[in-house]
Amino acid sequence: MSVAAKLKELNVALPPVTAPVANYVPAVIAGNLLYISGQLPLRDGQMTKGHLGAEVTIEQGYEAAKTCALNIVAQAAAALGGDLERVVRCVRLGGFISCTPEFVDHPKIVNGASDFIVSVFGDKGRHARTSIGVSSLPLGAAVEVEALFEIKP
Amino acid sequence: MSVAAKLKELNVALPPVTAPVANYVPAVIAGNLLYISGQLPLRDGQMTKGHLGAEVTIEQGYEAAKTCALNIVAQAAAALGGDLERVVRCVRLGGFISCTPEFVDHPKIVNGASDFIVSVFGDKGRHARTSIGVSSLPLGAAVEVEALFEIKP
Amino acid sequence: MSVAAKLKELNVALPPVTAPVANYVPAVIAGNLLYISGQLPLRDGQMTKGHLGAEVTIEQGYEAAKTCALNIVAQAAAALGGDLERVVRCVRLGGFISCTPEFVDHPKIVNGASDFIVSVFGDKGRHARTSIGVSSLPLGAAVEVEALFEIKP
Repeated sequence: MSVAAKLKELNVALPPVTAPVANYVPAVIAGNLLYISGQLPLRDGQMTKGHLGAEVTIEQGYEAAKTCALNIVAQAAAALGGDLERVVRCVRLGGFISCTPEFVDHPKIVNGASDFIVSVFGDKGRHARTSIGVSSLPLGAAVEVEALFEIKP
Repeated sequence: MSVAAKLKELNVALPPVTAPVANYVPAVIAGNLLYISGQLPLRDGQMTKGHLGAEVTIEQGYEAAKTCALNIVAQAAAALGGDLERVVRCVRLGGFISCTPEFVDHPKIVNGASDFIVSVFGDKGRHARTSIGVSSLPLGAAVEVEALFEIKP
Repeated sequence: MSVAAKLKELNVALPPVTAPVANYVPAVIAGNLLYISGQLPLRDGQMTKGHLGAEVTIEQGYEAAKTCALNIVAQAAAALGGDLERVVRCVRLGGFISCTPEFVDHPKIVNGASDFIVSVFGDKGRHARTSIGVSSLPLGAAVEVEALFEIKP
């Protein structure tokens, strides 16, 4: 099944992408690699803020990571001229969890991103991953996820 | 000297690798690059937990980073069908230290991983590196290390 | 305009690079990719230390990130035999901010690095970026920045 058909089956509408307000870009292609800038859990103008282990629950964190992944797919689509069939593989996700020093359930949170990527890309979505807990994230976000894809040049 | 011979000389037995329990994989090959997921200081079912600057000493942190690197080499071997001679270069290590805000000795910890990689791969093991201190890591780990290798495709 | 001419116009003198004291190197080339190790805000033997949101101001953080980027360019130049014209693109910056859990202005800090890279490389300097807040950095640094460049092999 094509990625486009899969998105339709999953009833996923890619959100509009917005340009960063600073001197950087959301995506860069170098040869057969597509780097996506760290994406925040921002959807319809709302963002999941706070720290896991404090005011943000595991369920909210999982959903936030999923939203980051949705924004990653939207940025990838924009960078590839709308053609997600050019994705050969999701190579790596980096998952950053804003959390307390006592928090230990990082994998449960980043799974929200991993599960979404695999649901969209199937076997081509199975990636390497690094998850860490951080003291804080831009704008107070609870989660941030970056991605690397292999693409057909 | 081959990497296999070097491991023997160092009396290093690669531990068995285990599949992640989530929707990601321990290693992905993209062209001539091999990405290894963040590895934890897990050995024989035991993991070094806690924060540097608090209950974990520099020596324990160094050993924990070395264990992460051992797991990296084991994952690389598994991804390469057991043939570590395909490694052209260790390109980069990312070292993540669970620590207090006052901790400043990150390099001494991540050296445990760097020293091990260089002991195994020699000049081919000399890598770029980024070390940071984080609020917490998956399952309460004290250290996490990810890696990137250049390989013969 | 060449990068060399641009550096002259900006009145930027690249600082001398120093070898890391551990078993890693400041830069590794793999094919058409140049990885630069995490650089600290070290200049003329002085380093910006502390945490954003506490004793380090936004302005000091911005300048610290700029200094990290200056050191990145110096390391890139050294790795390329002095020939920065071999840079095809700055692909990605990773910005790490030592900060309090309440800090939210990470983008304002990492802009110090992004603005500098774009000022030096122009459109070729427009990169993907991930910014996170960390509990602490090596030697107590306030900011650390790593980089990836695409180069002519």
